[in-house]
Amino acid sequence: MAKLQAGYLFPEIARRRAAHLQKYPDAKIISLGIGDTTEPIPNVITNAMAERAHALSTIDGYSGYGAEQGEKKLRAAIAATYYADLGIEDSDIFVSDGAKCDISRLQVLFGSNATIAVQDPSYPAYVDSSVIMGQTELYQQDVQKYGNIEYMRCNPENGFFPDLSTVPRTDIIFFCSPNNPTGAAASRDQLTKLVKFAKDNGSIIVYDSAYAMYISDDSPKSIFEIPGAKEVAIETASFSKYAGFTGVRLGWTVVPKELLFSDGHPVAKDFNRIVCTCFNGASNIAQAGGLACLSPEGLKAMRDVVGFYKENTEIIVDTFTSLGFNVYGAKNAPYVWVHFPGRNSWDVFAEILEKANVVTTPGSGFGPGGEGFVRVSAFGHRENIIEAARRLKQLYK
Amino acid sequence: MAKLQAGYLFPEIARRRAAHLQKYPDAKIISLGIGDTTEPIPNVITNAMAERAHALSTIDGYSGYGAEQGEKKLRAAIAATYYADLGIEDSDIFVSDGAKCDISRLQVLFGSNATIAVQDPSYPAYVDSSVIMGQTELYQQDVQKYGNIEYMRCNPENGFFPDLSTVPRTDIIFFCSPNNPTGAAASRDQLTKLVKFAKDNGSIIVYDSAYAMYISDDSPKSIFEIPGAKEVAIETASFSKYAGFTGVRLGWTVVPKELLFSDGHPVAKDFNRIVCTCFNGASNIAQAGGLACLSPEGLKAMRDVVGFYKENTEIIVDTFTSLGFNVYGAKNAPYVWVHFPGRNSWDVFAEILEKANVVTTPGSGFGPGGEGFVRVSAFGHRENIIEAARRLKQLYK
Repeated sequence: MAKLQAGYLFPEIARRRAAHLQKYPDAKIISLGIGDTTEPIPNVITNAMAERAHALSTIDGYSGYGAEQGEKKLRAAIAATYYADLGIEDSDIFVSDGAKCDISRLQVLFGSNATIAVQDPSYPAYVDSSVIMGQTELYQQDVQKYGNIEYMRCNPENGFFPDLSTVPRTDIIFFCSPNNPTGAAASRDQLTKLVKFAKDNGSIIVYDSAYAMYISDDSPKSIFEIPGAKEVAIETASFSKYAGFTGVRLGWTVVPKELLFSDGHPVAKDFNRIVCTCFNGASNIAQAGGLACLSPEGLKAMRDVVGFYKENTEIIVDTFTSLGFNVYGAKNAPYVWVHFPGRNSWDVFAEILEKANVVTTPGSGFGPGGEGFVRVSAFGHRENIIEAARRLKQLYK
Repeated sequence: MAKLQAGYLFPEIARRRAAHLQKYPDAKIISLGIGDTTEPIPNVITNAMAERAHALSTIDGYSGYGAEQGEKKLRAAIAATYYADLGIEDSDIFVSDGAKCDISRLQVLFGSNATIAVQDPSYPAYVDSSVIMGQTELYQQDVQKYGNIEYMRCNPENGFFPDLSTVPRTDIIFFCSPNNPTGAAASRDQLTKLVKFAKDNGSIIVYDSAYAMYISDDSPKSIFEIPGAKEVAIETASFSKYAGFTGVRLGWTVVPKELLFSDGHPVAKDFNRIVCTCFNGASNIAQAGGLACLSPEGLKAMRDVVGFYKENTEIIVDTFTSLGFNVYGAKNAPYVWVHFPGRNSWDVFAEILEKANVVTTPGSGFGPGGEGFVRVSAFGHRENIIEAARRLKQLYK
């Protein structure tokens, strides 16, 4: 624990935001920082959750402990909706209380001797959970990296896909696509290379697809679209950013039965044991919501929510582009990755907070490869996005 | 992982139950095995959850990510309800998705080098999570124990409280009271000894109080009733067995700010970091339910639920007593610990399942000290408890 640096990124941003508010109590802060959904959950979904809650007060509708792996119907609906024709079955799917929680359970599965690689920049939970599990060596202040983690640099020069020829073998490769924070979605060709790389090295890919429904082009929405991926990959996903479930808590992880440790033992069998020992299933009310999400009406409602945030993304992209900034991501993700060449990203964060009362996320919080960038989240009410755009234009005109 | 024995106890029981049903498809099985609540959740609680679900569909009522530590109002209500006058503050309370999940997060906090002691018998999650974290050595078949875990024998001879003079020092002491499975609640005098033992040894007690509301006598309901406990103990608790929340998932853990590692660093600070990195808070709908549980109406409703199960307990106690068995527990817990001297507890389990179609839990599943006992759970509809009693009288008359 002592190795961990400062605060986890988002609590740290919350702290700085609170300090700003203390200094300027009247500041009308707009938060485009933490990627937290803002739009109400569609009625078709909350109605199902309310109905399940009421049913729990009846003798017939009451249920106690559910299967730790999730309700059968929900597992089946996830398999049918997101993995039809990909050979993923209900039994490969573990329903969870969210992707972040599953990443940490996966780290418990891999244990303290596992070696990991991460995209640089990437969502901090991979690295922080690795540090907590004792997989890493000390933080090296000069390079802003932990020892014993491979940071796979992803930047505009390499199209946000790492040069795998320079990446040493690790046991585990965390790969988030569409990426948080850069918004880059890996192409079929890139993922094919990644799968081959993992297979050649005997590595397991943990593929975080929490933003897959934001993909607009023909990038794969699941790693399992790549032939052979079932033998090398785990996929984790979430309802958070599709249905506004960041507070409701529901996600899932796919561990294909084809994925084996080097001794031939199925990874899913051990993960199942972790899930049964360290977890007791997602809330049954949240699971009822998940099932409603995957009904025809629910799917349409989720696509509308995603579409709304994608319109926000366009407004943010237009704003920065019109100011002469280079922006990345955005097309396949609710994040705009804005380049401030040569500048320190915490300085840019502070400048935008101080002068525009807008909270962003400093790129370097996602790894040294994020230095010089800030992540602008498209999660916000439309009027706030428009007002933030106005202030940013004022600031950088 | 390879060190883990067989299945986690309850999935294993489920497997045997399924096998029995396959053999006798018409068997009317009554489950008094896994301690799973059966009675509907009181309306005052589900109404609050349904209301929160509906509110999530409104602009004003929507909320995304909550505080990882739980909503302020709920933390305050827990502190006021269960820890008034004990010096525990809102900020000491971490709301969770259940005690089992928090035990595993605590194990991540303690890490793979921690040494642990457990009551023998005790709830299997302490030992299994310890094995998964790599704290233990191999399972020793002859003594049915893992190496590097201290098993503190609790039996009728010592009043189900271990002889601490024979227990070596460990970093962590898991202590469940009222105990699952024996039903024994430690007295004030016993807990005072335990706190002194931990203080003398520089150990941390993880006190599992999930059944505290079942206490009928003057046994402490919280370890923090013992002077000095705040400097040596963590307490974990749950709404599961009070409000029927086994499927809804809501609990909490108290880490007092007074609890320090030997280097003076507050344990709560590190646990907070674990919670922020490996967890994203309990479902907001479940938290609304928790808040309703702690309203005057909700508290009354929970006491009624607990009272109902306690009546079940009496029926089970009377049944076995009338058949000449020695039974333990029961007074302060929803579990009856029935002695079958000289018999193998899996054999007794199989006999009761085979001949009475009643599922119990074999005592040895909770540790070698449980051999010769079965745990009979009082969670059941009244008519099932009465029918199970009838069949047991038939079987053992």
